[in-house]
Amino acid sequence: MSLNEINVTPLQRISTSGGDVMHAMKRTDPGYFGFGEVYFSWVEAGVVKAWKCHRCMSLNLVAPLGCIRFVFHQEGSVPAFRVEVIGEDRYARLTVPPGFWFGFQGLGEPRSLLMNVADLPHDPEEVLRKSVEEIQYDWSGG
Amino acid sequence: MSLNEINVTPLQRISTSGGDVMHAMKRTDPGYFGFGEVYFSWVEAGVVKAWKCHRCMSLNLVAPLGCIRFVFHQEGSVPAFRVEVIGEDRYARLTVPPGFWFGFQGLGEPRSLLMNVADLPHDPEEVLRKSVEEIQYDWSGG
Repeated sequence: MSLNEINVTPLQRISTSGGDVMHAMKRTDPGYFGFGEVYFSWVEAGVVKAWKCHRCMSLNLVAPLGCIRFVFHQEGSVPAFRVEVIGEDRYARLTVPPGFWFGFQGLGEPRSLLMNVADLPHDPEEVLRKSVEEIQYDWSGG
Repeated sequence: MSLNEINVTPLQRISTSGGDVMHAMKRTDPGYFGFGEVYFSWVEAGVVKAWKCHRCMSLNLVAPLGCIRFVFHQEGSVPAFRVEVIGEDRYARLTVPPGFWFGFQGLGEPRSLLMNVADLPHDPEEVLRKSVEEIQYDWSGG
């Protein structure tokens, strides 16, 4: 398992009078592993939500509003971290296979919106958690 | 076919430190007819996007940001229109079977965000369109 298995797919934003249309995910897209649930998470500017690791769920992450920094971690990997910033200015989908530790931080003012298209419905038994201090990462960096 | 077949499902908003989590759709929810595509549409305040009729696609509409007025129309039905306002203040999902004419209007300042979980990928051949004037409706109403 390598941090290179996390995929970034640029998404189309279609300029439309009165408000753009923005692609997110089709069933024919790479990274689509079935539909379990789609949900939103708001993240306020500066706030860090970390760390989680999904043992079974694959994630497809899209930020239609604002800007969010994702940090992925794999113990023993060199480097041990991978950073991806997505949002309105870099409109792309992150496909995250199970097994990676990750956290995210709101960079957009006053808040950013995240959508996850998950292949499984939410199941608390499937999520491992660590506090933000348990994996050392400098979230204050630009 | 009756305008009563359009369903409104209240959705859970889970208060979370640093930004709430908001349900949108699970594969076990009523109204889930399979996954074709999920996409976003921005709609600027005051703007009307009308009219469309999907011949085959079922829609599941959620507005995580702002406020959007939907107007559904069926010729010969009494009344001929049905109005549903969804958004942050009335966080709910609209399930729309194929065959209804509909339009929508942004009510939230400066813009509102709409997500559609559709059971089919986008196909221009499947959408019928009329100009806003072709179906008379008073969009200026409060």
